[in-house]
Amino acid sequence: MKSVYFVEKNKMQVREFPKAQLVKETDAIIKIVRACVCGSDLWWFRGISERQPGPVGHEAIGLIEEVGTGVKNFKVGDFVIVPFTHGCGHCPICLAGFEANCPNAKDGVNGGYQGEFYRAINTDGALVKIPGQPSDYSDDQLASLTALADVMPTGFHAAKAADVHEGDTVVVFGDGAVGLCAVISAKLLGAKRIIAMSRHEDRAALARDFGATDIIDERGEEAIQKIMSLTNGYGADAALECVGTKQAIESAFQAVRAGGRVGRVGVPHDVDYNEWIDSLFWKNIQLGGGVASVARWDKEILLEAVLSGEINPGRVFTAEFSLDEIQKAYEAMDQRTAIKSLLRISEV
Amino acid sequence: MKSVYFVEKNKMQVREFPKAQLVKETDAIIKIVRACVCGSDLWWFRGISERQPGPVGHEAIGLIEEVGTGVKNFKVGDFVIVPFTHGCGHCPICLAGFEANCPNAKDGVNGGYQGEFYRAINTDGALVKIPGQPSDYSDDQLASLTALADVMPTGFHAAKAADVHEGDTVVVFGDGAVGLCAVISAKLLGAKRIIAMSRHEDRAALARDFGATDIIDERGEEAIQKIMSLTNGYGADAALECVGTKQAIESAFQAVRAGGRVGRVGVPHDVDYNEWIDSLFWKNIQLGGGVASVARWDKEILLEAVLSGEINPGRVFTAEFSLDEIQKAYEAMDQRTAIKSLLRISEV
Repeated sequence: MKSVYFVEKNKMQVREFPKAQLVKETDAIIKIVRACVCGSDLWWFRGISERQPGPVGHEAIGLIEEVGTGVKNFKVGDFVIVPFTHGCGHCPICLAGFEANCPNAKDGVNGGYQGEFYRAINTDGALVKIPGQPSDYSDDQLASLTALADVMPTGFHAAKAADVHEGDTVVVFGDGAVGLCAVISAKLLGAKRIIAMSRHEDRAALARDFGATDIIDERGEEAIQKIMSLTNGYGADAALECVGTKQAIESAFQAVRAGGRVGRVGVPHDVDYNEWIDSLFWKNIQLGGGVASVARWDKEILLEAVLSGEINPGRVFTAEFSLDEIQKAYEAMDQRTAIKSLLRISEV
Repeated sequence: MKSVYFVEKNKMQVREFPKAQLVKETDAIIKIVRACVCGSDLWWFRGISERQPGPVGHEAIGLIEEVGTGVKNFKVGDFVIVPFTHGCGHCPICLAGFEANCPNAKDGVNGGYQGEFYRAINTDGALVKIPGQPSDYSDDQLASLTALADVMPTGFHAAKAADVHEGDTVVVFGDGAVGLCAVISAKLLGAKRIIAMSRHEDRAALARDFGATDIIDERGEEAIQKIMSLTNGYGADAALECVGTKQAIESAFQAVRAGGRVGRVGVPHDVDYNEWIDSLFWKNIQLGGGVASVARWDKEILLEAVLSGEINPGRVFTAEFSLDEIQKAYEAMDQRTAIKSLLRISEV
């Protein structure tokens, strides 16, 4: 089978591998239909973080090609979302809704989704069934379904971690694919005002389409002043940190009102939290967030919202590539000519 | 009028002052019935923190003696809780439920509650009406009503900041009056298992009476191991930090399961949060808390729970003093012969 291989900084290839095989009875082999490139993949593509050469990718949709004998909820031919999380679905942590922290998912491999076949573990808990077959859906719908493997639930996780609810004013930091999905999420959860931080016209336009009511192109101190002027000097009810930089998280802390909530889905490494934690206390601000609960949010709300057409997160894919064009798919995101790159792995 | 005066480290006196007077039309003068000494008062009593000599105390119940012309919801003779917070009740921050952060409460004075009369500001928003008159209540009930001015809502705030709900396993750090009230709160909110950290027999016994199902007298690493052994190795759903020390907050971070919540009502000053914030992210742990919403929690749930006898937070007052015995009242808490000292200011 063909699968994408990370060779070294700035260099991706498609290589031939033995076809993925069942190992455990709870495994499934997935024939990938669509996959995509994640913003987090750019860390090692750009050489900023270390990654060993090997198969990559952690977001896909596909058809179940084989199932182990222990799989109860899925059968060959089922159309599924293949999340980057691998929760077993039955431990106390999964039952509490935090599959990304499942203690039974140590064997889960984030890599190999950008390829023709992938071996999924914990099938019953980790995968999400999509009604019908790929051919029942338009290209746009398939893109939105692909977004449910990571980017959309991650944006939604930020919103849930910040307890966004009906009538809220929400500030979203980050106009990348995750930030844009956080805008969709705030809207879906009933926010009445959504302030998106963006200085790129195409992304700001998409944010507006997704429900942003205000766009702020300033950063730092000036951005905070602008947020305050939009909220009568009190600050927003919630801030969603979808960038993962020092400036973004520090601005998020300052952007919310007393009693407000900050949800984070990034981990900046150069912040001195000692400067902030007391002020969060004195302002009664809550800090939450972490790695997204993909299957949970998909099953609870997101899949239905995509199927009904209420949300269209696939619009974050502004460029589309075949498996053989993988180098271009990464470069388009690296050079910011695409917000997010979709990969057409097999025809439907 | 007589009022308690902080002279210097370890020295309290009762002194004569001009009677408290209305200043603004939204003020009320309260004839104090019961007041008490707060654990936080020990910081300056012991000379650990600075405080200027002057009137002190920030928890009381009493009768309204006079009201300003702008007060709508209270009249002379009303029996009230006098919270340490002074929220106006109508700004967006109060309406969001965070009266301790009310921007219209800058004139509020935390001092003077330990005395015969006190001038309250923002009467309509800040005070809480108690049905009937003081003479309608037993001494025990008056003690429980006094606890509603600070200590009980503060324990409850920790529990709400940690989103404690039905069926939860909750660990409470701190067996002082606030920690004991946090145990009451966890029980009131439906926690099924409440693990109280205590190494004092009298306090552990009270914690059990209040609903604690397990007592742990270890600290640090050993305490965490004990908590893990009680929770099948996963950790608790929520931890309530009611001590305000480095060890307590760090233990709270380690005591909760992935996706758990930490509520804090103390602010330790020697913690390096940079060592913890990433691990909170990777474990999807939420951190909340701050200064309590006294009137909110009293009106929403606590007053009714005291009136119905469902909770008896007044039991944290293990010693009772007259105003003239004020030095003894502080010393009893300083020397830990009392958990919390009640002051009988006027007979009912």
